[in-house]
Amino acid sequence: MTPQSQTASRAVSSALLSELRDLLGDRLSTAPAVLEQHGRDESYHRPYPPDAVAFARSTEEVSAIVKACAAHRAPVIPFGTGTSLEGHVAALQGGVCIDLGQMNRIVAVNEGDLDATVEAGVTRKQLNEHLRHSGLFFPIDPGADASLGGMAATRASGTNAVRYGTMRENVLGLTVVLADGRVIRTGGRARKSAAGYDLTRLFVGSEGTLGVITEVTLRLYGIPEAISAAVAAFPTVEDAVNTVILTIQSGVPVARIELLDEVQMDAVNRYAKLDYPVQPTLFFEFHGTTRGVVEQAERVQAIAAEFGAGDFRWATRPEDRNRLWQARHDAYYAARALRPGAKGWATDVCVPISRLAECISETKDDIRKSKLLAPIVGHVGDGNFHLSFVVDPDDPEEMAEARRLNERMVMRALALGGTCTGEHGIGYGKLDFLSAEHGEAVDVMRLLKTALDPDNRMNPGKVIRL
Amino acid sequence: MTPQSQTASRAVSSALLSELRDLLGDRLSTAPAVLEQHGRDESYHRPYPPDAVAFARSTEEVSAIVKACAAHRAPVIPFGTGTSLEGHVAALQGGVCIDLGQMNRIVAVNEGDLDATVEAGVTRKQLNEHLRHSGLFFPIDPGADASLGGMAATRASGTNAVRYGTMRENVLGLTVVLADGRVIRTGGRARKSAAGYDLTRLFVGSEGTLGVITEVTLRLYGIPEAISAAVAAFPTVEDAVNTVILTIQSGVPVARIELLDEVQMDAVNRYAKLDYPVQPTLFFEFHGTTRGVVEQAERVQAIAAEFGAGDFRWATRPEDRNRLWQARHDAYYAARALRPGAKGWATDVCVPISRLAECISETKDDIRKSKLLAPIVGHVGDGNFHLSFVVDPDDPEEMAEARRLNERMVMRALALGGTCTGEHGIGYGKLDFLSAEHGEAVDVMRLLKTALDPDNRMNPGKVIRL
Repeated sequence: MTPQSQTASRAVSSALLSELRDLLGDRLSTAPAVLEQHGRDESYHRPYPPDAVAFARSTEEVSAIVKACAAHRAPVIPFGTGTSLEGHVAALQGGVCIDLGQMNRIVAVNEGDLDATVEAGVTRKQLNEHLRHSGLFFPIDPGADASLGGMAATRASGTNAVRYGTMRENVLGLTVVLADGRVIRTGGRARKSAAGYDLTRLFVGSEGTLGVITEVTLRLYGIPEAISAAVAAFPTVEDAVNTVILTIQSGVPVARIELLDEVQMDAVNRYAKLDYPVQPTLFFEFHGTTRGVVEQAERVQAIAAEFGAGDFRWATRPEDRNRLWQARHDAYYAARALRPGAKGWATDVCVPISRLAECISETKDDIRKSKLLAPIVGHVGDGNFHLSFVVDPDDPEEMAEARRLNERMVMRALALGGTCTGEHGIGYGKLDFLSAEHGEAVDVMRLLKTALDPDNRMNPGKVIRL
Repeated sequence: MTPQSQTASRAVSSALLSELRDLLGDRLSTAPAVLEQHGRDESYHRPYPPDAVAFARSTEEVSAIVKACAAHRAPVIPFGTGTSLEGHVAALQGGVCIDLGQMNRIVAVNEGDLDATVEAGVTRKQLNEHLRHSGLFFPIDPGADASLGGMAATRASGTNAVRYGTMRENVLGLTVVLADGRVIRTGGRARKSAAGYDLTRLFVGSEGTLGVITEVTLRLYGIPEAISAAVAAFPTVEDAVNTVILTIQSGVPVARIELLDEVQMDAVNRYAKLDYPVQPTLFFEFHGTTRGVVEQAERVQAIAAEFGAGDFRWATRPEDRNRLWQARHDAYYAARALRPGAKGWATDVCVPISRLAECISETKDDIRKSKLLAPIVGHVGDGNFHLSFVVDPDDPEEMAEARRLNERMVMRALALGGTCTGEHGIGYGKLDFLSAEHGEAVDVMRLLKTALDPDNRMNPGKVIRL
C-alpha cells in the first residue's frame, strides 16, 4: 500500500515548513516513517500521509500552528492515537498533521464535582490510572486506548454506553482552536446550562473538520460498590436480542450487555483455548450496591430463562471478571486469528432496539451467502453492532464483496430507522451513507462547515463532501 | 404595561397578511387581544406583541408560512404555550408569531424502543396522559405544562433532571423548518449515532433563532416499580447542600432532590396551611425496585443525619407523595401570595455542586441586605437554583434593585465556574450574561446564526446580539 500512499498532493510550502520549524524545532517532522504512520488509522482505508507532522505541547502552540497553516492555506489534520476506523486521519489533500500525543497533562480533577479536565492527548486508560485512588472512573471505553480528544472528536462510545452514555453525554466542555487559530472554550463545569447554542455538542463528533480540540472537560462517576459479570449462551440471536430488549424495557440499569455471535464465540474459543458453547452469547455486567447488583442479576437471569438461555457463568472478584471479559476484549484479535495474515475491517451500524434482531439476522444471512468470514459483536443494549470482515486487502474481489455487504448492512439499518454508524464516525469511509441517512440535513451541516471553515482546510474531505 | 407593548414596529406588509390569510383562513389573527397574548411570556420582561399570529396545523403549513415570511422579509417567532421566562416570545421587531398549539398530535409511540414522536404543540402532561396505560413516562418537568417543542427549543429541564437529564439528553431527533422554509429531519431513533454534526443538539436550546421545531422524537422511561418521597429540614443551607453533594458523590441514583430555603418554606406553610419547620428543607424522591428504593432512602437518611437533618417525613402511596410534593409545586404561587398584587420574577443560575452552598449563601446575604423578598428554590442535585423576586413591576426602584441582585448572582455563578442559566435560557433577558459567560465562543454562535438565518428573521434579538 505504500506506493499509493505517497501520492498526496504537496500542500505545504517550504515557507510554512520553515515557519513551523522556527516554532517547534525538532517537534516538526517530515521523516517518511513519521508521515506514513500519521496518514493511517486502524481501518482498511487507503492511507494518505500528511506533508509534515507537528507535535504540539499546548493550546497556544496548536493555535500558532493553525494560524501559520491558515496564512499559507495548508490543510490541518488533528491526530490523537490513530485508532479511528473510517480513515479520519488520512491527509487526503496533504497538509500538516497536528499530533496531540504530547499534550497529555491531566489539568484538573474535581472530585467533589465528579469532573476532570484533560489535555486532548490524554488517553482513557491514562485518566483512569490517574483516578485510581480517588474512587472515581471515566466509563467510556472504545476498544482502543484512544486519546480523549480523539474520542470527543469522533463521538466515541463502547461497552459501557448503555449505562453511562457516549462522549455526547459525558463531555461537559471543550477548548477548541478554530480554523483561524482563535481559541474558544465551550460549555463549562455546571451540570446543565441553557445558555446559548450547544457548541460542545457541535464539536463533539465533528472529527476535526470544524476545529482542533485541545482540552476536554469530562464527567466522572463513582466506582460502584459492587460489580458482577455473567455470560450466558442462547439458542438463537433472536433469543439473545429479545433478552436484551426486555432487560432494557424493564428498567434494569445494566452497565454492559454485549452480544457475540456463534462465529465470534468459535473464534474466541480457538484464540484463548476456552470452551464456551459455540452459540450466540451475551456478556453482562452489573454495577450498583451489593444488594442492587444481586437484584439486577436475578431479574436478568429470569428474563434470559424465558428465552432459553443456558447456565449463567458468574464472576464478581476483579480477576475473575477480567478473565470472563477477556473473551469479549479479544474478539477482534480472535477474529483475525481465524485467518492468519488477513486484516480486520470493522464497520458498525445502530438501529432502534426493536429492529435489532431483524437487522442482525438479515446481515448474517448475507454473510452466509457470501464467501466472507465476518463475526458479529454488538453493544446490543444500544442497538449497536459491529461486523468484522476478516479479509485480504490485496484481493480486489474479496474487498468488493465486503464493500457490497457493508453497503447492504448500512442501507438495511437506515431502512429500519437506524444510523449508518453508531460509534465509528464518518471519516471518509461513510460520506455517501451520511447523505443517505440525513438527506437535506446534510446541507445544513455543509452550511455550518462553511461558516466555521470557509477555506475547507480543517481535515478536508471528512464528514462533509463540499 | 399595555401602552408600551403596542410600540412594536410594523414589520408585516398587507401583501404578506393577505398571502397568509389565503393559506390559513381564520387561523390567521390580528386581533389585538390575540397579539397581546402572544407577545408576552410568564416573565417580568416587557411584552412585544407580533403583527399577526398564524395558528399552524402541520409542518407543511409552518414551512409555507416561513417561506411567505422569507419572501416578505418578516420576522418569525415560534410560540408554544408562552410559559418561558426570559422574554423568548417577545416580537422585538414585530413579525409573524407561529402558534404551534394546534399541532398537538402524538405521531407515534414505540413502546419497544422507549421513544415517542410528537408534534411540537403537544404538552408534557398531554404526552404523559397518553402514555398512562403503557407503563412508560416522559420525565422532564419544568414547572409549567409547557409544549414539548418549546421545551426542546429552550433546553428545559426541571426536578427530574438529576436522574433523567434535560431536554439535551432526551431529544433523539427533530423536524425543523429552516429560515428559508425547507424542512429537515435531525437525529433519528437509534439510541446513539456518530453520523455527522449533532444538529439535534444545535437546535435544542436555540430558542427559535435557527429554525422552527415542528416535531420532536423523545426518549421515554419505564415507570419505576417503586417510588418513595421524603422531606427533611436542616439547620442551615450548607448542611442541606452538603447532604446533596455526598448523596450524588456516593452514587445514589436519586430521582429528585429539591431545596427550599426557610423563606420559601415559610411561604409554603402560609399558603397551604402546613406546619413544616421554617428551615432549609430538602424534598427527595427515589425511583427503583422496591428493595432498591428502600436502600437508597436508608443511605440518604444516614448522610442527612451527619448534617443534622430533622426527622424524615415519608410518603410512598401516590396520593401521599402528591400531597408531600404539593408544597414544592406550590412554591412559586406561595411566594407570590406573600405579597398580594405583586408579581414573581424567577431567575436561575447553575454552578458546579461543590460551589453551590457558597453561591446560595452569598446570594442570601445579598437578599438580606436588600429590602426585597426573594425565596430560593433549587434543583440542587444539578447545582441549579432559582431566585424568585416578589416585586411590584411598577416600582422602578424595586425593579432596579432586583436587577442589581440578579446581576450579582449571575456574575457570582460565573466566577464559581457556573452558567448564567441552568434551564430558563437567554431569551432577550440574559443577552449580556451570555457574552460574560462564553466570551469569544459567542462569535462562533454568531457565525452559526448568520449561516442558518442570514437575514436575521428567526426570533430576532434572542440568544445572540447581531
